[in-house]
Amino acid sequence: MIVVMKLSATGSEIERVEQRLEEMGFKSHLIHGVERIVIGAVGEKKIAFPTGLELLPGVEKVVPVMAPYKLVSREVREETSRVTVGDLVFGGESLVVCAGPCAVENEEQLVTIARRVKAAGAHILRGGAFKPRTSPYSFQGLEERGLAMLARAREETGMPVVTEVLNPQDGDMVARYSDILQVGARNMQNFPLLKELGQIGKPVLLKRGPAATIEEWLMAAEYILAEGNDAVILCERGIRTFEPATRNTLDISAVPLVKLWSHLPVIIDPCHSSGYWRLAMPLSMAAVAAGADGLMIEVHHRPEEALCDGPQSLTPANFQQLMRSVAQVAPVVGRCLVPPTGKRGGENEH
Amino acid sequence: MIVVMKLSATGSEIERVEQRLEEMGFKSHLIHGVERIVIGAVGEKKIAFPTGLELLPGVEKVVPVMAPYKLVSREVREETSRVTVGDLVFGGESLVVCAGPCAVENEEQLVTIARRVKAAGAHILRGGAFKPRTSPYSFQGLEERGLAMLARAREETGMPVVTEVLNPQDGDMVARYSDILQVGARNMQNFPLLKELGQIGKPVLLKRGPAATIEEWLMAAEYILAEGNDAVILCERGIRTFEPATRNTLDISAVPLVKLWSHLPVIIDPCHSSGYWRLAMPLSMAAVAAGADGLMIEVHHRPEEALCDGPQSLTPANFQQLMRSVAQVAPVVGRCLVPPTGKRGGENEH
Amino acid sequence: MIVVMKLSATGSEIERVEQRLEEMGFKSHLIHGVERIVIGAVGEKKIAFPTGLELLPGVEKVVPVMAPYKLVSREVREETSRVTVGDLVFGGESLVVCAGPCAVENEEQLVTIARRVKAAGAHILRGGAFKPRTSPYSFQGLEERGLAMLARAREETGMPVVTEVLNPQDGDMVARYSDILQVGARNMQNFPLLKELGQIGKPVLLKRGPAATIEEWLMAAEYILAEGNDAVILCERGIRTFEPATRNTLDISAVPLVKLWSHLPVIIDPCHSSGYWRLAMPLSMAAVAAGADGLMIEVHHRPEEALCDGPQSLTPANFQQLMRSVAQVAPVVGRCLVPPTGKRGGENEH
Amino acid sequence: MIVVMKLSATGSEIERVEQRLEEMGFKSHLIHGVERIVIGAVGEKKIAFPTGLELLPGVEKVVPVMAPYKLVSREVREETSRVTVGDLVFGGESLVVCAGPCAVENEEQLVTIARRVKAAGAHILRGGAFKPRTSPYSFQGLEERGLAMLARAREETGMPVVTEVLNPQDGDMVARYSDILQVGARNMQNFPLLKELGQIGKPVLLKRGPAATIEEWLMAAEYILAEGNDAVILCERGIRTFEPATRNTLDISAVPLVKLWSHLPVIIDPCHSSGYWRLAMPLSMAAVAAGADGLMIEVHHRPEEALCDGPQSLTPANFQQLMRSVAQVAPVVGRCLVPPTGKRGGENEH
Repeated sequence: MIVVMKLSATGSEIERVEQRLEEMGFKSHLIHGVERIVIGAVGEKKIAFPTGLELLPGVEKVVPVMAPYKLVSREVREETSRVTVGDLVFGGESLVVCAGPCAVENEEQLVTIARRVKAAGAHILRGGAFKPRTSPYSFQGLEERGLAMLARAREETGMPVVTEVLNPQDGDMVARYSDILQVGARNMQNFPLLKELGQIGKPVLLKRGPAATIEEWLMAAEYILAEGNDAVILCERGIRTFEPATRNTLDISAVPLVKLWSHLPVIIDPCHSSGYWRLAMPLSMAAVAAGADGLMIEVHHRPEEALCDGPQSLTPANFQQLMRSVAQVAPVVGRCLVPPTGKRGGENEH
Repeated sequence: MIVVMKLSATGSEIERVEQRLEEMGFKSHLIHGVERIVIGAVGEKKIAFPTGLELLPGVEKVVPVMAPYKLVSREVREETSRVTVGDLVFGGESLVVCAGPCAVENEEQLVTIARRVKAAGAHILRGGAFKPRTSPYSFQGLEERGLAMLARAREETGMPVVTEVLNPQDGDMVARYSDILQVGARNMQNFPLLKELGQIGKPVLLKRGPAATIEEWLMAAEYILAEGNDAVILCERGIRTFEPATRNTLDISAVPLVKLWSHLPVIIDPCHSSGYWRLAMPLSMAAVAAGADGLMIEVHHRPEEALCDGPQSLTPANFQQLMRSVAQVAPVVGRCLVPPTGKRGGENEH
Repeated sequence: MIVVMKLSATGSEIERVEQRLEEMGFKSHLIHGVERIVIGAVGEKKIAFPTGLELLPGVEKVVPVMAPYKLVSREVREETSRVTVGDLVFGGESLVVCAGPCAVENEEQLVTIARRVKAAGAHILRGGAFKPRTSPYSFQGLEERGLAMLARAREETGMPVVTEVLNPQDGDMVARYSDILQVGARNMQNFPLLKELGQIGKPVLLKRGPAATIEEWLMAAEYILAEGNDAVILCERGIRTFEPATRNTLDISAVPLVKLWSHLPVIIDPCHSSGYWRLAMPLSMAAVAAGADGLMIEVHHRPEEALCDGPQSLTPANFQQLMRSVAQVAPVVGRCLVPPTGKRGGENEH
Repeated sequence: MIVVMKLSATGSEIERVEQRLEEMGFKSHLIHGVERIVIGAVGEKKIAFPTGLELLPGVEKVVPVMAPYKLVSREVREETSRVTVGDLVFGGESLVVCAGPCAVENEEQLVTIARRVKAAGAHILRGGAFKPRTSPYSFQGLEERGLAMLARAREETGMPVVTEVLNPQDGDMVARYSDILQVGARNMQNFPLLKELGQIGKPVLLKRGPAATIEEWLMAAEYILAEGNDAVILCERGIRTFEPATRNTLDISAVPLVKLWSHLPVIIDPCHSSGYWRLAMPLSMAAVAAGADGLMIEVHHRPEEALCDGPQSLTPANFQQLMRSVAQVAPVVGRCLVPPTGKRGGENEH
């Protein structure tokens, strides 16, 4: 941490800062600049970053030197983490694709879509039973009935399941039905939820908040790891910007940046980021080319009748085409797209 | 709702849209433009806004005509709502000022600050017992012990108390201690929490999320009103923009806009929006001049030692100065700043 | 400047950084932290900030310590600058209000509006002769004919004139007609234009770009001062954010921040920032309460027929009301609103 | 255009709107909704979009139905435009890569880099002679001397040249030296410059402004086409968002969106968007995978000594590696990367 003193700082003001740093467990090193004094504060990373120093007389600003995250940092763990879900591995050579409807609407809908996406090569079935909706008048999800349908679809198809938890007290219930627990974008900084999922210990898919910096996203993951659960998969799904043409702006740069800073695997959701199914294909291609470890895609067999997010859902036929293209781009970046191995196969697409 | 058809839309595509609108309960009206067809869909406001129309062949885009909120709308209720907390009224002629520390740290700290802010004219005591922090290694609040200290500070000073609820399952507990339940900015779209607070029925202070549009903020309030609780106070606390000089950008325009669109009272938090105590005074003045119904201010008697957000906290002396200035600007906009009436007075500032 | 070395930096990498700093004229000071080395680089402010250091092996990041602006900085000049235009002073006790139509449409329109705004107390006449429009098919301004009309309106009313320059080669021509040369928001970083206006030497009104940080805005002013012209008035007119309810988001915090960092006067344009005339009044009140040195307001006697920006223009009657309210809020913050002194009076409003 | 009337609109208010629409050349069609009246206004696309309608009594809002651009629209021209520069074609099957230093520093530097990038497969040499810099104290470019060096580098290597024009009055001069005239991001809405380049008639590379919507970017291109020059190449280079980890946020979705809306070719600049050379490779891969027609890459043989933007410049060796990877991803999306054909070859990289 660097403390920059004001041009006008007096000797006793400087001493007071040094004294306060010492009380906090830091050693201070003075740098006498041409115009002003700068104090380098040296201490163990575990000393909490102090917030009040800016307020001492004579202090201009305080500049942190080190990133605030620890357990998620690549400096702590050089090798990319592999998060295992049954036979599947996020962060390995093979890409992992989650696909399914935005919301679980009924069993027939879910099983139909599950079979179609499995036939097209998807590995994991996604589907929301608890739906966070901007309007209280929109469909809010089937809740536990929806979870049970997901479990039945897993039985039918052999695909593991990922679904969102909204409320910390539902964590255990959702964990009974689901293989991966998803933290939605709006809940990225729902800290009671993060702690709860950290304690449950099942793999967590952590979506980036639409207004969260990459650093804040990694700090949210740090909450889960700090509870002892390091099975975290990050998911970039677009950030909020001034551009109205897309629902969000996919921050494709986040993929290589997260890879530089952290050992956690990261996947992309091209449907929520764009809000428009036509962009799902080019954005999926871009994501894999940029180094993403997988994709999360919304698929609906009748998008125009979907209870939620129809305009950003692909038909099974379009999804199949997307998977074929992704399979071609993967080897260019040293990855592959291996079909799911479950005995109970999906319905054939022909 | 307006459905704009593509230049190339065929007659049968137009018919299919009309048919689908009819199934949904709308009547359609065709407008034959010079270049293209536009379909006006007429229906009761209670019909859910359909999401899949954009996907029908020949449709270019769908434009909603009406705002999605209902209960919070000024069209539904012309008069400004008054939210009553004991003797105090948000939305009346007199401004209401909430002040206190960011976090409850211990009883001595809380009572000291409470007395000082009351003496300076604050009406409501704020203080966090559950603290949502970006880092899992930062102070997370005293939880129920902190709530008990708030209750004791209320006894000491006669000031009602506002504090944040993070977890829906803590709602009842917090409601036992607090007069107003605060939804923090990160939780603005924590829908289980909104529903819970809607059911508890105590006044709710709903902070705007840093990436939430004004419309989304009103929709979050709609969740609470839809549960039967219309005692909602809105609080603008800055939005996230590209400007790094302030922690957030105070959206001062939100004050008059919310007043145009909704009947709910709205207050301003100049400390979180700027992240810098020196801006609290000019931003408070601006807020009142723009029509805000009150303020929420962070005050700490030793900001440089605060466990949370010291740099944005005012000293009691600076807070007193702020209150004097606010008292002068209030009458210019037809408001006043009445001192608190509780029998148990705060400590005198001299 | 602080150079933070990587955890893995070797001794020879550190030496290379020190050597490079020395070549550039800096002295280096090593701080041996618990985990890593940090190098403080000390040098005269006039040494250019080096861009390539991050690329040397072993370097993690480079953190600048000082703000990049000099001439505009309050550290260089403690007293607020006063920019004089005839009898008027920006940055003094009295607020200065510029008012007039978005675009000069014809002489009758301009003179009518000029008389009305003068009668209401405006000091300076605004009006665009060169109009930067998003669409090439929109009205682009009357160009030199419009300038001549502005000059005639000045003769009629005695009001000084402010108008925008779009093209550096028009600088001299505009300066023959106008008392203040305006740099529009889209041109804040049009450096040839800034240099040209720096050389012409007349007062410059520098609008903040919709995507410019406050620091970049001050750097744009620095361009003008660096050419020897320190008569610069800053004008905040909203920044681009995700919020669609207003055309831009007025960054009210910029007013007190600019006052802390710079000695230049700063005014507010509430019309462009909101895009909506109904917000002009509350935002003007907020601006003055926050410490702004003046206002720039769009006024049109028939807004619904304006060739440009009608929805954000006030009628003369609404403008008069705004001026009355502003006159009341000014004394609260130690300012006043003195009516214009020109012999040739405006038309009386009764 | 759709005019939504207020709930409270009276019959005579509706008539007045209809009358005003008629005066403007529109025909109106009333839709009687359950709660309110909506008026569809039908007219030729060439009728200017009216700005004052919102101000008529009883009007709630005005919703445009059609995009404001015409000549750049894919509705007007279905086939992708091909912009030809010598033997090269932007918008064809083969990708076009522009590479070179941020700024022309001296002839030796420029020719060295030019030979290296040509050897690696670049088609066009980029290099700035006029440099728009945030600080007036930063290197501002060699101006005409720099242009002459670019021309000599072209002679040496046979590569066409692209360079930025800052000032409209320099347009002709730059056009004498350069094959493509670049409009920098800060000048995207410098309308006198756009008109000038429209008239000169040489190919224009139009960078997206950091705060410009895709629609505004297309409108800027429309300015150039409206002057009779349809040789416009769009270049996405990142937008300004709250994320501080990258200099800008590359809006990768803009590539497929521009392809849907417009017939103009679009390339990507991964260096300016990220500000960090390590991201240039993954972002270039992403751009090509998403359908971009080419790339613009900053290359410097000694980035750590570059006078401008060193941290985002690749070494020739890294650039060569990037080109090899791009050549592999191109065929996956039906494109190719053909080496330059000039007789005067670049220096071999071995």
